[in-house]
Amino acid sequence: MVYVIAVYDVQADRTRLFRNYLRRFLIHVQNSVFEGEVTEGELERMRDHIESLLEPGESTIIYTVSAESYVDRSVFGEDPTEDSKFL
Amino acid sequence: MVYVIAVYDVQADRTRLFRNYLRRFLIHVQNSVFEGEVTEGELERMRDHIESLLEPGESTIIYTVSAESYVDRSVFGEDPTEDSKFL
Repeated sequence: MVYVIAVYDVQADRTRLFRNYLRRFLIHVQNSVFEGEVTEGELERMRDHIESLLEPGESTIIYTVSAESYVDRSVFGEDPTEDSKFL
Repeated sequence: MVYVIAVYDVQADRTRLFRNYLRRFLIHVQNSVFEGEVTEGELERMRDHIESLLEPGESTIIYTVSAESYVDRSVFGEDPTEDSKFL
């Protein structure tokens, strides 16, 4: 398993497309940020699909860390994962 | 040194405030995403200041990894760091 943080910057009317797709693998933690643990195969699939979705001017950064235990995560302000819209 | 990824979700007219502050320590890699290596002291200072800037409904997530070498980073679509507005 690999720990993934994915952040996208896409046109406002296309965010739902990315959100719905990434939600299949990861947890929605902030407006355009997802994280979670996936297999190498899922990561590969995710990368390919994200690449096919992107239009000019849009981008997605995928950070991977070999284990979740290497990553520390602090949330300041309101934790959006506690908001029902992120479930 | 600690490797940091910071993502914020704040009101549109307040993004400049966060951008200008984080730019002192980190590199601007996407719309509301910064990353880079900082000392423990800088990280502490950054956390305190971010917390003081946030208004209700806004949030910032700070991920830390003990070394940059633990993190792999792939950019899909246009790499915003190649755009002069991110310099």
